[in-house]
Parts: sequence; structure tokens; C-alpha cells
Amino acid sequence: MGIKTSEQYLESLRGLKPNVYIMGEQVEDIVGSKYFEITLKEMCKWYDWANEPGEKEDFAYWSPLINEDVSFWTHLRQDKDGLRKMIAVMKENNARHFCSMCMVIGLSVMWATTYDIDLEKGTHYHERLQNFFKHLQREDLRYCLGVMDPKGDRSLAPSAQADPDLHLRVVDKNSEGIIVNGAKMHTSNAPVMHYIFACPSGLLKEADKDYAVSFAVPIDAKGITFITRPAPGPLEKKSLESPASSNIGFVECLTVFDNVFVPWENVFMCGEWEFTEKLVGYFSPYVRLCKGTCTSARTDIIAGTAALIADYNGVGKASHIRNKITDMMISSEIGWGCALGAVSNSVQHPSGIPIPDVSISNAGLYHCRLRFVEFLGMLHEIAGGVVTTMPTEAEYLNEATRTYIEKYFKGRKGISTEDRLKLLYFIQDMTASRFGGYLVASAICAGGTPETNRVEVQRNYNLLEKIRNVKAICNIKE
Amino acid sequence: MGIKTSEQYLESLRGLKPNVYIMGEQVEDIVGSKYFEITLKEMCKWYDWANEPGEKEDFAYWSPLINEDVSFWTHLRQDKDGLRKMIAVMKENNARHFCSMCMVIGLSVMWATTYDIDLEKGTHYHERLQNFFKHLQREDLRYCLGVMDPKGDRSLAPSAQADPDLHLRVVDKNSEGIIVNGAKMHTSNAPVMHYIFACPSGLLKEADKDYAVSFAVPIDAKGITFITRPAPGPLEKKSLESPASSNIGFVECLTVFDNVFVPWENVFMCGEWEFTEKLVGYFSPYVRLCKGTCTSARTDIIAGTAALIADYNGVGKASHIRNKITDMMISSEIGWGCALGAVSNSVQHPSGIPIPDVSISNAGLYHCRLRFVEFLGMLHEIAGGVVTTMPTEAEYLNEATRTYIEKYFKGRKGISTEDRLKLLYFIQDMTASRFGGYLVASAICAGGTPETNRVEVQRNYNLLEKIRNVKAICNIKE
Amino acid sequence: MGIKTSEQYLESLRGLKPNVYIMGEQVEDIVGSKYFEITLKEMCKWYDWANEPGEKEDFAYWSPLINEDVSFWTHLRQDKDGLRKMIAVMKENNARHFCSMCMVIGLSVMWATTYDIDLEKGTHYHERLQNFFKHLQREDLRYCLGVMDPKGDRSLAPSAQADPDLHLRVVDKNSEGIIVNGAKMHTSNAPVMHYIFACPSGLLKEADKDYAVSFAVPIDAKGITFITRPAPGPLEKKSLESPASSNIGFVECLTVFDNVFVPWENVFMCGEWEFTEKLVGYFSPYVRLCKGTCTSARTDIIAGTAALIADYNGVGKASHIRNKITDMMISSEIGWGCALGAVSNSVQHPSGIPIPDVSISNAGLYHCRLRFVEFLGMLHEIAGGVVTTMPTEAEYLNEATRTYIEKYFKGRKGISTEDRLKLLYFIQDMTASRFGGYLVASAICAGGTPETNRVEVQRNYNLLEKIRNVKAICNIKE
Amino acid sequence: MGIKTSEQYLESLRGLKPNVYIMGEQVEDIVGSKYFEITLKEMCKWYDWANEPGEKEDFAYWSPLINEDVSFWTHLRQDKDGLRKMIAVMKENNARHFCSMCMVIGLSVMWATTYDIDLEKGTHYHERLQNFFKHLQREDLRYCLGVMDPKGDRSLAPSAQADPDLHLRVVDKNSEGIIVNGAKMHTSNAPVMHYIFACPSGLLKEADKDYAVSFAVPIDAKGITFITRPAPGPLEKKSLESPASSNIGFVECLTVFDNVFVPWENVFMCGEWEFTEKLVGYFSPYVRLCKGTCTSARTDIIAGTAALIADYNGVGKASHIRNKITDMMISSEIGWGCALGAVSNSVQHPSGIPIPDVSISNAGLYHCRLRFVEFLGMLHEIAGGVVTTMPTEAEYLNEATRTYIEKYFKGRKGISTEDRLKLLYFIQDMTASRFGGYLVASAICAGGTPETNRVEVQRNYNLLEKIRNVKAICNIKE
Repeated sequence: MGIKTSEQYLESLRGLKPNVYIMGEQVEDIVGSKYFEITLKEMCKWYDWANEPGEKEDFAYWSPLINEDVSFWTHLRQDKDGLRKMIAVMKENNARHFCSMCMVIGLSVMWATTYDIDLEKGTHYHERLQNFFKHLQREDLRYCLGVMDPKGDRSLAPSAQADPDLHLRVVDKNSEGIIVNGAKMHTSNAPVMHYIFACPSGLLKEADKDYAVSFAVPIDAKGITFITRPAPGPLEKKSLESPASSNIGFVECLTVFDNVFVPWENVFMCGEWEFTEKLVGYFSPYVRLCKGTCTSARTDIIAGTAALIADYNGVGKASHIRNKITDMMISSEIGWGCALGAVSNSVQHPSGIPIPDVSISNAGLYHCRLRFVEFLGMLHEIAGGVVTTMPTEAEYLNEATRTYIEKYFKGRKGISTEDRLKLLYFIQDMTASRFGGYLVASAICAGGTPETNRVEVQRNYNLLEKIRNVKAICNIKE
Repeated sequence: MGIKTSEQYLESLRGLKPNVYIMGEQVEDIVGSKYFEITLKEMCKWYDWANEPGEKEDFAYWSPLINEDVSFWTHLRQDKDGLRKMIAVMKENNARHFCSMCMVIGLSVMWATTYDIDLEKGTHYHERLQNFFKHLQREDLRYCLGVMDPKGDRSLAPSAQADPDLHLRVVDKNSEGIIVNGAKMHTSNAPVMHYIFACPSGLLKEADKDYAVSFAVPIDAKGITFITRPAPGPLEKKSLESPASSNIGFVECLTVFDNVFVPWENVFMCGEWEFTEKLVGYFSPYVRLCKGTCTSARTDIIAGTAALIADYNGVGKASHIRNKITDMMISSEIGWGCALGAVSNSVQHPSGIPIPDVSISNAGLYHCRLRFVEFLGMLHEIAGGVVTTMPTEAEYLNEATRTYIEKYFKGRKGISTEDRLKLLYFIQDMTASRFGGYLVASAICAGGTPETNRVEVQRNYNLLEKIRNVKAICNIKE
Repeated sequence: MGIKTSEQYLESLRGLKPNVYIMGEQVEDIVGSKYFEITLKEMCKWYDWANEPGEKEDFAYWSPLINEDVSFWTHLRQDKDGLRKMIAVMKENNARHFCSMCMVIGLSVMWATTYDIDLEKGTHYHERLQNFFKHLQREDLRYCLGVMDPKGDRSLAPSAQADPDLHLRVVDKNSEGIIVNGAKMHTSNAPVMHYIFACPSGLLKEADKDYAVSFAVPIDAKGITFITRPAPGPLEKKSLESPASSNIGFVECLTVFDNVFVPWENVFMCGEWEFTEKLVGYFSPYVRLCKGTCTSARTDIIAGTAALIADYNGVGKASHIRNKITDMMISSEIGWGCALGAVSNSVQHPSGIPIPDVSISNAGLYHCRLRFVEFLGMLHEIAGGVVTTMPTEAEYLNEATRTYIEKYFKGRKGISTEDRLKLLYFIQDMTASRFGGYLVASAICAGGTPETNRVEVQRNYNLLEKIRNVKAICNIKE
Repeated sequence: MGIKTSEQYLESLRGLKPNVYIMGEQVEDIVGSKYFEITLKEMCKWYDWANEPGEKEDFAYWSPLINEDVSFWTHLRQDKDGLRKMIAVMKENNARHFCSMCMVIGLSVMWATTYDIDLEKGTHYHERLQNFFKHLQREDLRYCLGVMDPKGDRSLAPSAQADPDLHLRVVDKNSEGIIVNGAKMHTSNAPVMHYIFACPSGLLKEADKDYAVSFAVPIDAKGITFITRPAPGPLEKKSLESPASSNIGFVECLTVFDNVFVPWENVFMCGEWEFTEKLVGYFSPYVRLCKGTCTSARTDIIAGTAALIADYNGVGKASHIRNKITDMMISSEIGWGCALGAVSNSVQHPSGIPIPDVSISNAGLYHCRLRFVEFLGMLHEIAGGVVTTMPTEAEYLNEATRTYIEKYFKGRKGISTEDRLKLLYFIQDMTASRFGGYLVASAICAGGTPETNRVEVQRNYNLLEKIRNVKAICNIKE
């Protein structure tokens, strides 16, 4: 049964005993901890949607791998149409919920990479990954991608660091499996997942071959420690403030691997440094496709919010405000258009999955993510200075001050002060809070940075062809 | 026989007697006039390509309308794949030749519009257009789009102008046909075409119904005068200078209609002002799709040129230059990615043609065209001040000065001074000449302006849906 | 004695009994309240600096008004050199402390406005303001500017609002003084000041003449209520986190005036709606001058931070990072250069103060403030995703996890993990927290918005002269 | 007599016999050559202005060096006020005439550099330069700056080039003087000047000491050849077209020095490579100050033109057009504000001249010049596609077509078609012609490129101080 309920999910978490620290304490009962409340609410939502009429069309898919319905999380997209459907769901869903969790792309990328390795090296990684995939699908399990290494001095290769553990690496192997040491950063939501799925974070040279390692381990494998911070939202329940971050948000972890054993059946790469180029080559278009779609959808949220607060303020028709909202629309369409274009230009990998266009997906995201940050500023301008000077909800709930707030925070006729406050708190949530910081970080750093986009376009754009064209025009012989 | 040779084309022109003025003279023999040499060279090229192995794959297509092969110019694209192929040819070809002539989109747009009108009004425009289309295909004829009206005071509607002719209009009709008066601007290459195909340039209200007129007339119809200016390139042959504008470039015309009669069989709209909204709705995505593709391809030319001159100057690896070229690449990919995305999102019109996504096509073009202008400046920076201070070729051809030029215009080792001069003259041609001005105009004004793109995105983006999403997040009831 | 100590300041606050609400409670003892701790720390600092060798050169000035030394806060700048010194202090000080408090500009603006009114109307506002100024100087008092009104429906004039109190107004007057009703928004730090100084927030027409009111009142005047929110920093002491917001930050208020009486001696404008144009004309260059300087200085903080974290990460020499930092430098220089240029172009007002150039001050700020928001995103990119995923200091202080953090958050050789953490927490403080939101709001909304800058440039740029020049070039007669 | 008439100037040119090639011919009589007509018209204008009431206030100055009035060209600015007056004249004059000729800055820069060299080396360059300066002033002579070398492979130092002449160098010296070989590029108007004034174009190392040479020579010195191209304007007289380029524009030259002898009295630097850093350090702020002012003034022309054509088209109030014009205004004010700021922050050099602020002058220019290129595109958008498709004046002058043009090129009521055509031809002149290319080149390449601005800001911004501030905030010990 490839689709579980959120109750089954929570129950399954209770059976795991990961080593988790948060706010200076060790957590025994994650499901019951206040620090995980928001995160679990969000995780459950995705389980619920896979079961819910009106949503399951988007969140449950028939999988040929196990001939059963599986969730959005665990479904492998095997053709352009599948990929297009995937981003269409993200586009729509992230515009109302900020995130759809695009974790599956990590597995897709390794799907192609393991195929390539096996073909050249005669290894059996691809079959193992297939088995792991089927296991995830059948049990409807969740996994966290462990990609980014701590990296220490970013100008040095993994093997050249003062401390060799600053990138995750194989320190030993035997007939049963491998022992790994190191850590992965930014392992969002790791303690509420079932597995950590690790892979290298960049191109590796031969000297770094111990760092060319990909595997999956249960989160409570011996030697793993999660140094966790709470989701950005408030710990206590709010009635008006923080409408997004009260329901949405990841705990973030430094996931430490202290001599962790991984059995061979869950090892998907081990030493094949020369395939990290392919891995990155597949990762880049997949992650930028998703991120471009996501940033487009989040831009839609900003645009909708800007339009609504302008209306509440009585200036919905002001030309400079309409201009700013049009800028948001254009950026959203560019992000989305390039995502569609990247899928449209994708090529089928022999392992049976489409690889989207690298340059287009990177270019679209590059544009959209940089503008996203500017739009947060524009939203401040449209909403006004109240975003950071307005009273907290405690004042609104206090009878002694509520009347004044009702009177002086009134917007245009026909809009209740409470609705305007709700919207302003949402803007505060998105642009003047820890959650707002997370939106910036997510736009700028998640899935590679803008600079990475530039590098990828530079690498993949066919400049030589363009130079040949120019020589022909100029009648320059080579 | 839907594909003709360039000889047949020139011969056919000799049979026409249009009323053409250029440089203060009336032209009798267009084919033999120096003012039309560049233009005709370019027109012939497209005929040649439709016959030439290696090119005809892109420039000749089987047409179901006449069950014969027809040229790129006259082929109606009837599905997404056809549309995608069309822009793929433009993308590749414009990157080596600046233009592929995207005139057919005007006919496609009227294909859909006439279908809509007939359906609602019981008219027979669509059948007439089909017949005209077949005629064009069978004879492999060329046509010029007459869209833009002179417009006079742009703040006034056509019928409110001091002079009612400032937009082309029907002044009379009878059982044989209609009489039109007015003019069309920017009728590129009109005197070397076989037909003028006219349609309204914007949304019309009921008061303007006489202006809701679309038709085709031979260029030598009585009452038509072409007030023409030469293509931007040089009149005399150059050996090194102006490598693009010596071979590429349109004559431009003000095409005056002085009580011109058009038989009903060539009238495709006459008074149906309420369908101009649909017309614009179809025109916009088609023209922006082509223009986005075109601007992307021309950006490729700039990128290739920038890379080559940087190499010639010995600074191909300078990071600031690579950065600028990467900016060009990104913009090119955005223009191209959105064109692909717009096709991917197109919907099939009941008349049997796909309508691309309006917002995406406008957004992609908007970005790409504005950056194109900036890139001309960047190209100056990369090439250096010599672009406008270098000697003319007359000095290079003069023995008395050639040695000094050879010596002092040398770039990096291994590159001949002559090759470097050729490339610099090309840059001059693109950025510091009348042809350069045409590239800017083409990027900015052709196919609607950047502001039009903004208006189209604003109109077509689903803002209400985004506002609904925001209300749901904020728990605001409607 | 125009310079007091911070102890004297705190003592003076204890003598005031304002009506203050914060976090749902009424505050009796502001000096002892945890909600005011950060704010008071900052207020005291400015008193201390006026007494401290090495700082007093910048924060104490001889005042000709009272022939004594007075503080930065209360000193009236009466010539270009004084103005230049003022912004030089802001530029240097805000680059290390974010804010210098530029409140005095409000009084300078009213200094000129009252002079103009008296000259035309024979009133005595200017003398009253002089007296109030001397009082502030002698007692070294602090005042909060109350400028922004709640505004309700921004498309309607004050007198056209459903609720006439949505802009502060005179509801009655008698021989003793006036009665005002309404509220002022964004009255930063009001409860720790001695006075509120109110003036109109925009251009008024005759119908709005009751809204043309300027006055000063003690903060504990009868009828004033402060609905306050805490400064954005943490309430509890941090050891590493929030290094800026633990020491810097304003409480913000909605300041309600419920039938507040103001004696005539403290009324500086009452009904002279036609002088609001002059008021705005003086306010604009003053506030943009300060804000441009301030934003330049804060950009310096971003640039320094970016350079330092890049170095800590081992990538201080990466060209793309240097590029981003250079962008910051350029924006900082533009903000600062235009501030200097605006002073250099200032004209002396007959009341004895210089009025800086409106267009230049607005243009410089416009550029600098928009880029500031982008730079927050760039800082994320340079620092990396850790800004929002790094452990809280609770984990660093916990022995069980500290070793892992020490190991895995190490940067380049020679930099202690703790220093890197401190810096990352500062970046978090500036870009991913409530304080970060305040920095955005301050850049975008404080002192008028970017759109206001555009309007001011448009109004003050001499376009007619430029048009005349163009006509002369074109030989167009007028 | 420090001020001459234009007749005296032309007479003086007739006495010189420079070796000039243009359009494949050698020119004997420059004053009578059609290729020099535009250029001489412009040169004469500056002489005329120095004699003309209403203009001489700006173009004639009392010089303490010779105790006589001298022209704008030859006047040394010795304090902030003088410098401010200089840029004020440029700002006003370039907004109506495009150029004021800022050649004097080259001599100012060498004024300071020679002083520094003499002080350290005991040489006598400064006295020689003073004498040369007085000679220029007394005779009211003109000089061309020869700064840029051909440079060959830009990645190699002068002495490392395959051909050592690719930078101008000393090949021999004797008791009488020095012999130089090489060439200078972009020597605008050189054949109509009296002297070439040469100096190094960049930082030199010891190996390049032969390239550290500055001197003045008469243009007809033996061994000098001018390979010249005409000014960009038309050779034949136009009645409507090219209103700017018919009157304004430089001939450009490659100036070749083929073993040219320079007597010691005109040598101002010879081998002191270590002072090129100072030279560049003085050159940079001076040239950017002038260029920033100039670009601001040319932006004023664009803004005025845009406003006027929008009015003629009936859309002067359209918000998107006003927005674009406001963008132009803002950029103009930034360029001008930073120029004023750079003067305001200038420091007095011991040789008796002010050195403007390097960072501010570079930052202001950087912004303004990049936007200038964008504005050319905006001007196309505002004016419309007619800029490159409108009839030539030959058609307007032809009776057979004039009526149609009169009718169809009419703009809004009250504006004659002829005036609209004049303006459109001016726009064509500025944006779609060789002259337009020169405007781009001048904005982007003249006086160093945008990239040079970035480098200068990077070098001169006090980043260490900002880093120190950040460490203090974060409590990081050094």
C-alpha cells in the first residue's frame, strides 16, 4: 500500500529513536515536542492530501515500479509529461503553501547516475537504488536529502582540508558495508523523516575519491546526531500573527555522521569520483527546474499579497503600485516559462528518465530568485511602514487598546480592520521575521546559488557555435 | 508548385508595377535599382534556402492545405510541434542571419480570428482567407504585413482624430468590394513583396468600426504609394566594412492607400470591431513568441561577437568579460526558454491552430529585448573605443597607411590584423551605424513595445487566483 | 548646561508618567521594564558620547542660540559646513551603530516653515519655535517626530475620510491653546522621549486646513496613549546571537491623541494649509539627505560583513564575490556622493538654515535604498545557507553538541569557529530576523518611499529647460 | 592676449603642415576640406564663445599664471570653486551642445604628477609644464590628449608585446631631447589642434620604464602621421536630418609616431615608471568627474527629447512614459550629484590643484553611463518605430510625396508635421546613426570603461575600516 495516512506516519515516527538535540536539550519524543509541532503539521498535510479528494489527483500517482499508487514524494517521473505534471503541481501548490517538497529529484538524479556507473563499471548500484525506491514507495516513507557538506575552507578540495571530515567520506569498508564519517548541512526536517539519503555536493577529483559516496540510512542509525533548530515560526499559538510560519516551516539540522555503518544494499556510489560530473550535470537541471517553479509560485504569493494590501489601503489602482505588481508577474512568468521550456527541451536518459535543459532551467531560476528578494522590498513599500511598527496581536487582544487599533488601523471602506491586520501580519511574517529570512535564504541559497546558475549556463551554452556564426557573417576563415 | 526559385521570384517582381518613391525619385525598375539591392539579396536567399539541401529541411514544409511542399513563409503551423519547429528554425537561423521573416504569424492570427467571426456572424471570411492562403502557397508569394497605422495623436481613438485617415479605414463599399483610405507604417520590404496584408493595429470600439478592416491587395493596386527609404546598409560595395548590413536589411515604407479598391474575396474583416480584442489576443502571443525567439538569437550573435573580440584582444579569460558574456547567455536562454514554454503551454484554437501562452511569451520577450540594448553597450566596452575611432576601410586599402594599420591594429598573437578589423567593422555595423539603430528599433519597437508586453502580462496573469490563495493563508473570509 | 549625562536622562524619564501599553500590559516603570532595555541602552549611548572624549567632537556642538555646547540631537545646522559635518558624523557613526538619530531635521524644517508663515501672515510661530528649541538645548531633551498619520483610505484626502481622525487634526481652540485629536504612526521610541513634536505628513488643500497643525507636547500630556511594540531584538540576554539587535533598536508606537490640549506657546502651525507645500519642500531634501547618508553607511556595514565572511569561508578572492562587494561599494559611494552633492548645492533660507538640493538628495537615496535590499540577498549568497540553518547558540553552549559544532562550523585556517559563528549570527541578525525586517523597512519606508523619491525628482528637475535645449538643437521655433 | 578669435584660429591652422590621411587621400588643406567642415565648425564655436557676451562668462577666465584672461580650454583650475565652476559649465553646455572639451584635465593631472616627480627626483618637469601651459594660454592654442596606446594583446604588459611599439615609447635620447616611437589611439580632432600632448595610459612596472613618457609636440612635427576618419555626421548639408551631427562631431585618428623627436623642454616625464600610479590616481577622478558631468548633461538631452516627442505624439501624460523620463532624471541627478560630491570631497594637492574624490566620481559615472545606453532604447520606445522607418528628407522635399508625409506624420493638434519630423530626425541622429554609435562609445569607452570605474572604487573604498566596524559590532577581537 503506497499511500499512508498521517496517523500511520506519526505512528511510524514513534518507532524510531534518533539522536536529536534542539534548544540545548535532547529530545526523546519528537512527535510530542513543541519544537516539532509546526514541522509535523506540515508533514502530515502532505500525507493527508494524498488521501483527500480534490488533492489526491495531484498528490497520488500510479507507479509502474510497484504497480500501485504512490505519493508525490516517492514517485519517479519517467517522461516529459510526468515531469511537467510534477512542476504543475508545485507551481499551483507552492503558491498557496510555499513548498511541495521536491526531495524526489535527488533520487531521480541518482537513478540516472547509478545507471551510468553500472554501465561503465559493471557495478550494481542501479538495482540497489531501484529496490530502495520500491521500499520507499511501498511503505510511503520520507527521506531527507543530505547533499551539502560543511566544507570548511571553500577554496580547498575535500581531501585538502585541515580536517578531512569537513566533507562526508568513507573511512572504512568491509564485506557488510561501509563506514562513513562527516556531516551534512541543511538537512531540512531530517528528524521527522525515515531515511537520510546522502550524495556528494560537487565535482570531485581522484584525490577526493573517498568523498564520492551516496547511500541511504535510517535516521536512527547508530552514530548519527541531529543538531537541530526549530522551524522559524512561533512556539506558542498565535491568533492573528504569523499565519504562514505557524503552519509551515522546517526544522533544520546539522546531521553528524560519527562512524556510521551503511550496509552495501543501501550504498549507491562508493569511490566513483569521475561520475560526480554526471551527477552534478543531472542534479543541476532537476533542482533548478523545481526551484524555478517554486520561486515563481512564491512570487505569485507576493504578487497576490501586494495587490490585496494595495486594495485594502485604497491604492489598488495607483500606477506605480500596478507597475510593481506587473514586475512581479513578469518575473513569475519568466520563472515558470523557463521551467516549462526546460521540460520541453528535456532529453531522455537511457535509464528511463527525462533530463531537463540545464541552461534554460538555470537561467530562469537565476532571474526569478534575484527579483524575489527585490519584491520583498517592494512589498514593504506597498504595504507601508506599519509592517514593522504595527502593534503586536497582544495589543489587539487587550481591551484597553483594541478600540484605538480598530479605529486607527482601518483601511479603505468595506474592509474590516481585523482583515487588514491579518494581512499585515502575513506580510510581517514573510518580510520581517525569521520566516522571512528563510524565504530569502531559500530563494538565494537553496538548490545552489545564483552564482552556480551563472556557472551552469556558462558551461552549457553553446558558445562555439555562436562564434562560428559570427565568423561566417564576417567572412573570417578559420 | 509551392516552392519557387529566386530567379522566378525576381521575374515575378518585374511583372508588377508598384508606385514607389525612394531618395526623392520614383523607381521604375525595382529589381535593377541600387536602393533595393541589399533587400533583394536577402529576399532571394530565402527562396534559395527552400531549394538548397542542408537548408530546405528548415525552409520547406509539406502543407496539408494544398498537399504540396511550401516555403517557411507561407506554411501554416497547425499544432504545437509545428510551432516549435518554426521557432527552432528562427532561433538557429536568426543567430546567423538576424532574420527569418516571421510574416506568416499575421496570417495565422487572422486564420483564427476569421474563424471566430464566421462562427458568430455567419460571414465567410475564413474560407476567403483559406483561399488566399492556398494561393500564396501554390505560387510561393510574399506579402508584407500592414499593421501599424500612423495614429496621429496617440491619446485619441481612430475616429476621434482631427484627420480620420490617420488610421486605415473603409470609406466605401459596394457589391464588388470595399474602398479603403489611410496608410500603414513600418511596412518593411513592401515594394519587393507581392501583396500587402492589412489588419487593425489595436483594440477598437464601436465608434471605430470603419477601422476594423483586414484585407490583402497586390502591391501594384491602384492608389497605393510606397514612400520608401533604403535599407540601412551601404549603397556601394564594401570589402571589409558593414559585413551584415551589406547583405541584410529591409527597405522601409510608409504605404499610402489613396481610395484603394479591394474585392470582397480578399476582405477578411470589415466592421467587426468587437473581434479586435480576439485579434489582439491572438496576435500578441504569436508575435511575442517570434520576437522573443528572434531577440534570443540576436543576443547569441552579440555573445559570440563579444567572445571572439575578447579573444582577439587577448582578454578572453578576463572575469569581468566572461561575466558580461554570461549575462548575454542568460538573457538568450530566458528569451528562448520562455518561447519554448509559451509553445508548451499553448492551447489549440478550434480553427486548427495553436495559440501560445500570452503571459509567458510577453514576459520572456520583455526581459530579453531590454537587455539586448544593454548588451550593445557591453559589446562596446569589450571591443573598446576603436569601434567608433578606427580607420575606415579606405585607409586600410590605401598603401600609404595600410602598413601602420597592420602594425597598430594587431591583436593577440595568431590573429591577423585583417580578421580583427573585419570583426571590429562588424561590431561597428551592429552598434554604431544605421543598421545598429535598426537593431535597437527592432528589439524595442517591433512587434509591440516593452510597455505592451507589460500590459499583456498584466491582463493575462491570473491575479485573482493569487489573491484568493493569500486570503486562504491569512484566514480572511471573503 | 546643554549636555546631560545618561544618568540624568534616566532620572528625567522617571519623572514622567506617560500612558504606555506594551505586550498587552500597561507599563508603570519604563526605565525598569525589560521591554525598554535595548531602547534605553541605545538612548543612553548618545548621551554618553556627548560627554566622552573621542566621541564628543562629533556629538557635542557649540550653539549660538544659547551660547553653550549642545548635543547632536538638539543642534541647529545653520550653514553648509554645519550640514556637511552633520552628515559626516552620520556616515561614520551609522556604519558602526546603524543609527545616529536624525530627529533634528524635523525641527530645522519647521524652523524655515514658521519663518515663512510669520513673514506672510504676521504670526509668531518662529519665535515660539526658537523658544522651544532653546528649551530643548538647555535641558538636552529628546523628542520624537510625529509625522505620519494613520491615513485610512490612502486615495482620500484627510477631510474626505469616513473617520475624520485618521489624520491628526485640531478639533477645538481657545485663548489658551488648541485641542487635537487623532494619532501618529511610526513614532519611534516615543515613550522614552520628553516631547512629541508633530507636523503634517503631506500636502494639504484648504478643505483640510484643520489638519495643518504642528506642535510639541510632553509625552505625558493628558490624552496621549502609546500603543507600543518592543524593539526587534531578544528580550533575554544572548551571548553570541543578535549582536546588533541586542544593543540597538527602537520601540515603535502608535501614538494616540485623544482630545489633547496644547498651549499656544507650543503651537507652530495651525490652519496654514497653504504652507504645507513649503513644509514638504523643506522636509524632502533634509530627510533624504539623512536617509541617503544613513543607507550609504548601512551599506558599508553590509560590505564589511560580506568581505569578512567571504574571508572566513576561504573565498575572499573569488571574483564573483569581489564583484558583489564592489556593487555594494558603488552604491554606498553613490548614496554618499549625492548626499555631499546635495549639501554642496544647498541654498540658504532667509531663516538662516541651508536647504539641500531636493533632486540630488532624492536621486541618491532612491538608488541606494533599492540596492540595499538586494544586498541583503547577496549577503545570504556570500555567507551561505547556514545563515538560516545554523544551530542556535543553545546548542553551542551545550557540552553535548558543542564539539561537533566546533568541528563542523570551522572556516578557513586561522579563524576560530566561535568568531565565524559570531559573524554568522550577526548576518542572521541583519537578514533573517525581526531586526532584519526593520532594516528593510527602514531602507524602503522610512523618510518617504522610493516612489516619493521619484515624485520629488520629477517635480524638481528642470525639464522645461532641457526641452528648450532640444528645440534649439533641432531648430524648432517656439 | 589669451583669447583668440575663430578667424585667428583658422589662420593659425593654415600655417601648420601635418601629415593627414582621410578616406584614402592625403589632405593638404584641412581648413578647406569637406571632411573637416563639421569639426572645424565646432572648434570655432568654442573660440567664438570665449568672445561672445552671454557665453564668455563661462568660456573665458582670468589666469594667475599669465595674469590675463584665457579660454576654458587652457585654464588651470586651482581650487574647489574653480573645479565646481568648470563642471557647472560642462553640465549646462553639454546639455545643449553635447561636449565642452575637457582636455585641460590631462594637463592638470600632469601638473600634479610633474610636481611629485620633481620633489622626489629633483627633475624639472613641473617648470617645463608651467612654461608649456603659459604658452598655450598666451597663444590660446589647442591640444589633443594622446593617452590610449594601441595595446595589442591586452593581457600583456607593454614591454612583453610581440611588437614593442604597441605602446608609445622612448627609443632614444640625447642632449637635445628624446625620440619616440609608437602610436596613440582615439586622438580626437588631432589634425585641427596645435599640439599633441601625450602621457602613459596605465600603470607601468620597471620593465616598462621606456613607456613612461609624457610630452607635447606640434602636430606637424616630423614623423607624425594622422590616419583619420571623418566626423560621424553627413558630408553634404542637410535641411532637416542630422541636426546634431551636422554641427557637432570629431574626426578621429590613429596618430602614428614614427621616430619623432621631442626637445627636452617639452618632455614632462621620461622613465619615471613608479609615478604612473600617481598619474593614474590623479587622472581617474579628474576624467570621471568630467565624464560623469558630461553623461549627466547628455542624459538631460535624452530626457528633454523624450518629453518633447511624447508631447508631440499626444502621450506626454502617459504614466509609463513619465516613469521612463523620471528614470532619466534620476540618473542625471546621480551623475551630477556625485560630480558635485566628488568636488566637495576633493583634497588640495601641494602643486596647487584640487584632486576630486576618486570613489565618488567613479561610482557616479558608472551608474550614469550604463543607464545612458538603456535610455537610448527607451527613447526608441517613446518615439516609436518611425525612428528607423520614417522617410528621408529627400522624400519630404519631393513635391510628389510631401503631401502624404505632411498628412501621415502629423502628431497631436497644434504641432506642425515639420517640427515633429525635425525632432524625429534628431532622435534618429542620436540613436540610429554613426553619431548615435559615437554617443554610446563616448558613454561606455571614453575616459575609461565601466569596468575601470569598478576597479577604481574597489581600490579606493576603505574596506578595512568597514571590516573593523563589523568586528566591533560582533565582539570579534582582532
